[in-house]
Amino acid sequence: MRIAEHIRSSNRSLASAHAADLDHLALQLRRDEIDIHAVLDELAAFDVAIPSWALGTGGTRFGRFPGRGEPQNVFQKVDDIALIHQLTGASSRVSLHIPWDEPDDAVALREHAAAAGIGFDAVNSNTFQDQRGQALSYKFGSLSHTDAAIRAQAIAHHLHVIALGDGLGSKALTVWLADGSNYPGQIHLRKSFDRLLESLHTVYAHLPHDWGLFTEHKPFEPAFYATVVQDWGSSLLLAQALGPRASCLVDLGHHLPGTNVEQVVARLITAGKLGGFHFNDSKYGDDDLTSGSIHPYQLFLVFNELVDASRELGTDFRPAYMIDQSHNVKDPIEALLSTVDCLQQACAKALLVRRDALHHYQVTSDALMAERTLKSAYDTDVRPLVREVRRRKGAALDPVVAFRHCGYRTLVAKSRSCADYAPPQSL
Amino acid sequence: MRIAEHIRSSNRSLASAHAADLDHLALQLRRDEIDIHAVLDELAAFDVAIPSWALGTGGTRFGRFPGRGEPQNVFQKVDDIALIHQLTGASSRVSLHIPWDEPDDAVALREHAAAAGIGFDAVNSNTFQDQRGQALSYKFGSLSHTDAAIRAQAIAHHLHVIALGDGLGSKALTVWLADGSNYPGQIHLRKSFDRLLESLHTVYAHLPHDWGLFTEHKPFEPAFYATVVQDWGSSLLLAQALGPRASCLVDLGHHLPGTNVEQVVARLITAGKLGGFHFNDSKYGDDDLTSGSIHPYQLFLVFNELVDASRELGTDFRPAYMIDQSHNVKDPIEALLSTVDCLQQACAKALLVRRDALHHYQVTSDALMAERTLKSAYDTDVRPLVREVRRRKGAALDPVVAFRHCGYRTLVAKSRSCADYAPPQSL
Amino acid sequence: MRIAEHIRSSNRSLASAHAADLDHLALQLRRDEIDIHAVLDELAAFDVAIPSWALGTGGTRFGRFPGRGEPQNVFQKVDDIALIHQLTGASSRVSLHIPWDEPDDAVALREHAAAAGIGFDAVNSNTFQDQRGQALSYKFGSLSHTDAAIRAQAIAHHLHVIALGDGLGSKALTVWLADGSNYPGQIHLRKSFDRLLESLHTVYAHLPHDWGLFTEHKPFEPAFYATVVQDWGSSLLLAQALGPRASCLVDLGHHLPGTNVEQVVARLITAGKLGGFHFNDSKYGDDDLTSGSIHPYQLFLVFNELVDASRELGTDFRPAYMIDQSHNVKDPIEALLSTVDCLQQACAKALLVRRDALHHYQVTSDALMAERTLKSAYDTDVRPLVREVRRRKGAALDPVVAFRHCGYRTLVAKSRSCADYAPPQSL
Amino acid sequence: MRIAEHIRSSNRSLASAHAADLDHLALQLRRDEIDIHAVLDELAAFDVAIPSWALGTGGTRFGRFPGRGEPQNVFQKVDDIALIHQLTGASSRVSLHIPWDEPDDAVALREHAAAAGIGFDAVNSNTFQDQRGQALSYKFGSLSHTDAAIRAQAIAHHLHVIALGDGLGSKALTVWLADGSNYPGQIHLRKSFDRLLESLHTVYAHLPHDWGLFTEHKPFEPAFYATVVQDWGSSLLLAQALGPRASCLVDLGHHLPGTNVEQVVARLITAGKLGGFHFNDSKYGDDDLTSGSIHPYQLFLVFNELVDASRELGTDFRPAYMIDQSHNVKDPIEALLSTVDCLQQACAKALLVRRDALHHYQVTSDALMAERTLKSAYDTDVRPLVREVRRRKGAALDPVVAFRHCGYRTLVAKSRSCADYAPPQSL
Repeated sequence: MRIAEHIRSSNRSLASAHAADLDHLALQLRRDEIDIHAVLDELAAFDVAIPSWALGTGGTRFGRFPGRGEPQNVFQKVDDIALIHQLTGASSRVSLHIPWDEPDDAVALREHAAAAGIGFDAVNSNTFQDQRGQALSYKFGSLSHTDAAIRAQAIAHHLHVIALGDGLGSKALTVWLADGSNYPGQIHLRKSFDRLLESLHTVYAHLPHDWGLFTEHKPFEPAFYATVVQDWGSSLLLAQALGPRASCLVDLGHHLPGTNVEQVVARLITAGKLGGFHFNDSKYGDDDLTSGSIHPYQLFLVFNELVDASRELGTDFRPAYMIDQSHNVKDPIEALLSTVDCLQQACAKALLVRRDALHHYQVTSDALMAERTLKSAYDTDVRPLVREVRRRKGAALDPVVAFRHCGYRTLVAKSRSCADYAPPQSL
Repeated sequence: MRIAEHIRSSNRSLASAHAADLDHLALQLRRDEIDIHAVLDELAAFDVAIPSWALGTGGTRFGRFPGRGEPQNVFQKVDDIALIHQLTGASSRVSLHIPWDEPDDAVALREHAAAAGIGFDAVNSNTFQDQRGQALSYKFGSLSHTDAAIRAQAIAHHLHVIALGDGLGSKALTVWLADGSNYPGQIHLRKSFDRLLESLHTVYAHLPHDWGLFTEHKPFEPAFYATVVQDWGSSLLLAQALGPRASCLVDLGHHLPGTNVEQVVARLITAGKLGGFHFNDSKYGDDDLTSGSIHPYQLFLVFNELVDASRELGTDFRPAYMIDQSHNVKDPIEALLSTVDCLQQACAKALLVRRDALHHYQVTSDALMAERTLKSAYDTDVRPLVREVRRRKGAALDPVVAFRHCGYRTLVAKSRSCADYAPPQSL
Repeated sequence: MRIAEHIRSSNRSLASAHAADLDHLALQLRRDEIDIHAVLDELAAFDVAIPSWALGTGGTRFGRFPGRGEPQNVFQKVDDIALIHQLTGASSRVSLHIPWDEPDDAVALREHAAAAGIGFDAVNSNTFQDQRGQALSYKFGSLSHTDAAIRAQAIAHHLHVIALGDGLGSKALTVWLADGSNYPGQIHLRKSFDRLLESLHTVYAHLPHDWGLFTEHKPFEPAFYATVVQDWGSSLLLAQALGPRASCLVDLGHHLPGTNVEQVVARLITAGKLGGFHFNDSKYGDDDLTSGSIHPYQLFLVFNELVDASRELGTDFRPAYMIDQSHNVKDPIEALLSTVDCLQQACAKALLVRRDALHHYQVTSDALMAERTLKSAYDTDVRPLVREVRRRKGAALDPVVAFRHCGYRTLVAKSRSCADYAPPQSL
Repeated sequence: MRIAEHIRSSNRSLASAHAADLDHLALQLRRDEIDIHAVLDELAAFDVAIPSWALGTGGTRFGRFPGRGEPQNVFQKVDDIALIHQLTGASSRVSLHIPWDEPDDAVALREHAAAAGIGFDAVNSNTFQDQRGQALSYKFGSLSHTDAAIRAQAIAHHLHVIALGDGLGSKALTVWLADGSNYPGQIHLRKSFDRLLESLHTVYAHLPHDWGLFTEHKPFEPAFYATVVQDWGSSLLLAQALGPRASCLVDLGHHLPGTNVEQVVARLITAGKLGGFHFNDSKYGDDDLTSGSIHPYQLFLVFNELVDASRELGTDFRPAYMIDQSHNVKDPIEALLSTVDCLQQACAKALLVRRDALHHYQVTSDALMAERTLKSAYDTDVRPLVREVRRRKGAALDPVVAFRHCGYRTLVAKSRSCADYAPPQSL
């Protein structure tokens, strides 16, 4: 039985309950003068890129516990993403990591993906690990290293990644760096930043004219004293200095404890420098958990800022949406199916916020009613909306259940040998 | 017996021990080819402003436990600061808070201070409290309020503070705001920032041509969800938009847990926007403890950045140094004497860093020796240096002991009635 | 028009929408074999005590912005709580703070409360502030002070609080202490704990036989280096040493960043020492915000532990539920109405968790489905359940709206003069 | 040239400077009536165990950058430790990790170590990774797993570790577990703890009569939602339930942001359950940096508690001292040499605290002088003390310099092939 049939079969059994839930929700929303059809149309446009490294089981420095049937190469990763897209209707692109996913034959990969309905999102460089045969080591930095030869090697890698991505149809480069130090004094805090900026200028100069460059910050790990791009302020300084096609990428887990992430998002919008997202969730550090699994309300508040800005800025406002998670204890495909669903729910709730009412309460300093306006959208059970969007696209009402029933994992477990598999890691 | 005599008497008893310690330190430094005289000259230039609000006992929302002999007005505060300066030789200016320290007669205050050898540092506005007779409330914001009339009132207050400071000889305005929200939705995150910037443009336009404006950020308290100027990134956006005389003030306690504060300092230097400091220390939030009492190594690392930048940027690099502490359990004067001493020690240690060696180890990625170069300066007992600087200025070798012996607190306790005293609070 | 009429009138306009929502929810729950009637019965038993100090506008060390019509004495506070109980049907007790709410005539207070249908929950002592006329100061501690006379004074205060509470019908004493230090060395970490335990032994010995004693921990504020009862481990040591009637109180805001609060709750249940709660929410420190306003999912997870334990331990498991919030920007009554509603929603969601399914997934290490089982309950819109429970009790379907319409605040604003009002503070 | 000769040669060049420094320090201490000889005797007794896993270059989940000449087996690790002990005179024991350091021939290992003057400290189990050929996986837990067979396998491993350690002369077992969950609902918080305790009861029952068992807590990593032994409170509950030979191990990096670690140490002393330490330092999470490299004052405050307790409790108070670090950017041997030095400095400073004076200031609530008493010891340059202790033992005045000069790393780099080396990881 093909996937599509599994979806249809699975959907059939859920259809009547879904219809009843959707009807009631439509009724409920009508009371607040919200048109469910407009919401459904907007929600249907939601799409998030899947990172190639999230398809295998992730790990920590203490170990990795692989699952069965993990993809062995980038073609198989695209297969898994195509399945996720078929089940969710909302993940039509892959974000590649080079060299982990360097294809021998880029044309073949592009055609393989196109045949499966999958396009290519931002490409990701990697100068945080040494690769076999690499001339110089990144142990003490890459684009910010004190040694010009190492910087040159890292720059060359970035140009290679751009060329490869250009061939695949990508339109952006994400630069996440491990450059930093573990001890006070190890690096010169200002000079290392200056060197990084100089290196990025060269990379930026080689960017195709229709490409963007995303600078990604992170407070710690793998550097444990000072990371060169440690927060959105440093990321902003880089993006400002580079030029209009440079902007900042916000990974939801790359913040110090207590950071008001939705406010960081708001500030980057104000600065005209919000490039995109790496979605995930976390309780302590860069835990790379399923989006919305720890702080679902925060995820809603981030989407609230995005919907609010899109109302004001229109179609020019199109930050890139990517997932960046590490699936250590869940089946990666199941985790991604849940993630797409959870992101859609957060987006749906943000679409339900009555912005006129919110504006009124904000202007009149009615803190309680303003908060209640947000909470009312958040408390609404939006699962029928997300299901309906999927239904209309021929995707699964319940993607995880459909996935479990279709036997995909068992099937690929037979054909994918794990022997030589190098585990992907989450950024 | 006058203070000067107490100092001389106290110093006499410590003189020979001090001389022996200084001699040995000179010997020790000579081994590393460090000229103790050059260090002493540089250290002698260190001076830090005392905030008027730190002279009274501070408190928390749970209460205040006043001490005896607290100053009742700004004239008495200047007296206390003059004493601190006499004992330390390193605190020649006061940073006033308006309206807490609004003098009835500014000319009289300026003359009173001048007579005591005290000048006027940055003035501080206050729109985080409502004052008696104030027309409109700041409960829901001031410079960023949705109500234009409230913004106008707050702007007028700032212009008043500038005018007052100008008359006293101040050259800068510090703007710390409580504007923010306790609940998601309460304020519009972007619009409130836009309104704040608009208000600050007006304030900036009224700044005397030789004045600076410091924007001060703080992550939380008294706002507990979103503060409008929550971090150095937001502060930077403001300072960039306002113009060259605007820069950022770093309060050492206004950071989220784990923030690498010395790196924030380095980034602001790179951006050309480091305006100055509010020195204090903290373990949890904005605890406003004695500088160096919790994280003395971090304080040294901050000064290390400052000395490093001054070597490179020369005399143009002159960030403002101010203390901002809340003295809840210590005698405020004693706490400030210790604070000045502790800041001088951190500065002295930073002056001892062998920068050529550090540079060499950084360039060669010798993390251990680079760190050791810093640590070697930090591990040095620099108390003889600080004492010698004080000795040369006629100040006290041991300011706290000299203060306790001189009987000042007992004396002023008689003349200063606490009955109507409104407690100052720390920013 | 009386409150009851306002409620009826307000409910009438919402009745049909509510009925439709409830019907649909019943249908939805039936699919998961959940009996809505059983859930409603359990939910109807939920009741939370209102702290007397939460009825006035709270503040921070930077100021307080009072609202109109705040209660001027404990009788008026009871009036406000009675109103809240009338509107919510779920807040039938008051938790008094002594001496803030010390009645001149305890019998009159008890009768006044009884007439309004309000009982007395745990009483709270206060040795974190000095009161007028108090012989000795708590500046450097109370029950743990080095001075035996100060400890004796603090013990006497606690015995007084017990006696007063006993007369009112309270059955528990909550001991929250500010004892601690701002600087390393200020107190001896072990000896101060020993002295505290010794003092508490005396208090415990005077406890009526049917009373409990709650020890409450807090990591910081007002002490900013070391608080004597800083975490649940220290609280547990006290409760273990005191005896079976001593147990630990968990304030949701009294934890370091990242603390897994629901796990702390679980551990205290295991230790047989979970005494009760102070509900609130926070993003940074002890922010004392509305329960569920920042981390609503965490609040649900706490209730999930409570419902889980009650299934296992039965009626012996009855931790005390109290609110502890500071209402700085919301009308206190409105904030409390929302709070009771939010707590009921968290409780309702926890009641919907399919525990057999959850158990199955836990036993089979199916992380994704186990999480989904929790999330499914959390994602359910339970507002109809909470409304129905209120409806059945004659309370308001929408308490805030009913409150705004009934004109109570305007009414009391006329009769309550704020002139001499000392602001209550949140614990 | 043999190591001993390198040491002598290196020491000769530093001898006169050292003598001068020591003489001056003796003079300085005499002023405070501190007998330098007594301090030196106490300091000479300091000894800390080296963990076998710290000899190789550590890494993060993002990669590892190996250095040359890393030890390939436990015999070579013992060789490295013997060298460290020869250079420092203060690291005479090794703490083994099983199975990473499982010797084929335990008798041979014991003899090899004995010949080098190295003994065996606590042994460490590992159920946080799957080993080749292992029957059942620890992906979802070990001693707390829901599956009794997996628990039995983990128990058997612990008994094996005990037996092995017993043969080597170890006297304690350290149990650090990764058991926990990444998502709410994944594990039952209470039942998983109950199962862990039950498993530990079995392990404890098999402990040789003169052995101790250390339970080690950690808030997060590799579990990112709930770790079964997440804090000292949970660790305490285990140690209390197990019996008198069970106690708690404090890893300095296993605490939430802001934890007052020295207070945790104090509480465990009070509870009679302080078993020992894993020394390291950290800024964000479990960063496993060189001890004292980030928060040197905190390290001193921890030793201050230890010295204080030893004064009171005498020789019965002997917590185990172990290092637990990950050396990602430093040569591991150099890092450990620095670490031992840094721990000795912290210990030396704690020995200099004038406890009578401190006691006096604490009793009289003189916060400033109490703090100053601690700070005075901390500010003292104690490097001459540590050097003198080494000199008397025939160790190196400057171990890092002596190590660099002796050419050990180059030598072993020739004989140790890295080809098959599996990197050790830090706990």
